[in-house]
Amino acid sequence: MEFTTIFDFIGTFAFAISGVRLAARKNFDLFGAYVVGFVTAVGGGTLRDLMLGTTPFWMTTPYYVIITGVALLTVIVLKKWLVRFDSTFFIFDAIGLGFFTVVGLEKSMAADFPMWINIIMGCITGATGGIIRDILLNEVPLIFRKDIYALACAGGGIVYCICHKYGMPNVATQVIAAASVILIRIVAVHYGISLPSLSPDQDDSLHSNS
Amino acid sequence: MEFTTIFDFIGTFAFAISGVRLAARKNFDLFGAYVVGFVTAVGGGTLRDLMLGTTPFWMTTPYYVIITGVALLTVIVLKKWLVRFDSTFFIFDAIGLGFFTVVGLEKSMAADFPMWINIIMGCITGATGGIIRDILLNEVPLIFRKDIYALACAGGGIVYCICHKYGMPNVATQVIAAASVILIRIVAVHYGISLPSLSPDQDDSLHSNS
Amino acid sequence: MEFTTIFDFIGTFAFAISGVRLAARKNFDLFGAYVVGFVTAVGGGTLRDLMLGTTPFWMTTPYYVIITGVALLTVIVLKKWLVRFDSTFFIFDAIGLGFFTVVGLEKSMAADFPMWINIIMGCITGATGGIIRDILLNEVPLIFRKDIYALACAGGGIVYCICHKYGMPNVATQVIAAASVILIRIVAVHYGISLPSLSPDQDDSLHSNS
Repeated sequence: MEFTTIFDFIGTFAFAISGVRLAARKNFDLFGAYVVGFVTAVGGGTLRDLMLGTTPFWMTTPYYVIITGVALLTVIVLKKWLVRFDSTFFIFDAIGLGFFTVVGLEKSMAADFPMWINIIMGCITGATGGIIRDILLNEVPLIFRKDIYALACAGGGIVYCICHKYGMPNVATQVIAAASVILIRIVAVHYGISLPSLSPDQDDSLHSNS
Repeated sequence: MEFTTIFDFIGTFAFAISGVRLAARKNFDLFGAYVVGFVTAVGGGTLRDLMLGTTPFWMTTPYYVIITGVALLTVIVLKKWLVRFDSTFFIFDAIGLGFFTVVGLEKSMAADFPMWINIIMGCITGATGGIIRDILLNEVPLIFRKDIYALACAGGGIVYCICHKYGMPNVATQVIAAASVILIRIVAVHYGISLPSLSPDQDDSLHSNS
Repeated sequence: MEFTTIFDFIGTFAFAISGVRLAARKNFDLFGAYVVGFVTAVGGGTLRDLMLGTTPFWMTTPYYVIITGVALLTVIVLKKWLVRFDSTFFIFDAIGLGFFTVVGLEKSMAADFPMWINIIMGCITGATGGIIRDILLNEVPLIFRKDIYALACAGGGIVYCICHKYGMPNVATQVIAAASVILIRIVAVHYGISLPSLSPDQDDSLHSNS
């Protein structure tokens, strides 16, 4: 087992847990919770692979299907205690985000796309799973309204490009880029930093006031 | 016309009818109802084909576009009497589900994927159309909350694998697998069997009680 | 720069503006507004390209990413005055719809699909971006309930086929087809022409009355 595989599995597990827990809050049945967990974990990479024209990554190994099953079992068995581990899950989720971003970026780079596409593919890999999860739950996607999330992926992607351009060894580039994503995410959540929201057209609010 | 084609058309018709009727309840216009009917009928197979890397099946023959049109006309003309045929549509829908599952599984098998992927592709073919339908209607997908639906596909897929492994003739394998899906579905609905739902985190409910 | 490129950019800009403005009404942050604008502009062509089995068009040139950025900036800077330009945006949007329809139809034709698929691909190119936009905003897609929209694409597509069949020069065919889409759209909105909506099953309404 490669070193990076551990991070891949941690990220998949954390993403699946977040999907399963949100599905539970909407009283989904076991199957629905499993699907939402699975889509949260693999949705981003699947969209990336379809756009890159390759077979979705989770179809080449049963690990992702199994890890989602473990995540579902974890939520069922540890339900009462899960909230106590929220900060652990947050760290896992941030690790997953950092790792997914680097994986997505490199898969796009290996297919000879230019750097700006690679950065976008990193963001899509990290952020799309959560968007599809919220669509399935019939909610406005959380990442459009709160926190620095996909922007952390973009930040990590830019760091990757800079390291890569100046000839830094591959492993160092990966670690620094993933760490940047994780750091941006932790700092943003800890200090409650959000992007400003776009307020509606001025005339609209005038209209609703009158 | 092949024997199986009849089941394919019955399933497509039943799925399209379900999409058109639910769109009518949301006061969609004729075009919107057609689109929802079409997506319900072909959405699962389309996602499967994109993941398998082939051209979506409905792009190779005009039958699916035409059958959806017939379904739309049927709902318009027979609107007043449709409810009386609900049990007929339920049987058609179950036949379609069984047939779609077998078609999806075999298409994946023909592309040399392992059996666990074939089973998943059978489930995606059968269940995704209804999920996209509910997303377009801005509802929480029904199959995540009620009834045994995608699980019937999975059950039929497992039956297929067992028959296939023990060298049963192809047609017998197809019939037994499709019949399993239909039977599971009918038994589940008749006896009101559902999967247990995942209740929310204990601490959440405590919190909302206090 | 080719002649047609200008129409492509006008359409992209108008579609992105519509996405950003609707996201602003839902208090999305800057990143969320950008994503919604981008998906509105390129979503239809992306689905078309995935179905045709080619790389999504926006991955081959940075213009679409940049134009969406310009659209976001435009909304931020001109927020107070945007409403005054609503009729301008409507014309831009109609031009974009006509242009996208022709581009989608021709891309499908170049891949040797039959004419009925080309027309559908024209409709998908023009209309899917707005559908995905509304799903991200957690609304029932507007085009299923109001106005002649995708039907204008279908009308333009049929006009294209007729011109093409009777050997009209390519540029004339393109212009006449795009103009048909724009004209249908303008006439429909100006005279408030909508498709009839499918009323729900008779028995349902009886039931809710009693």
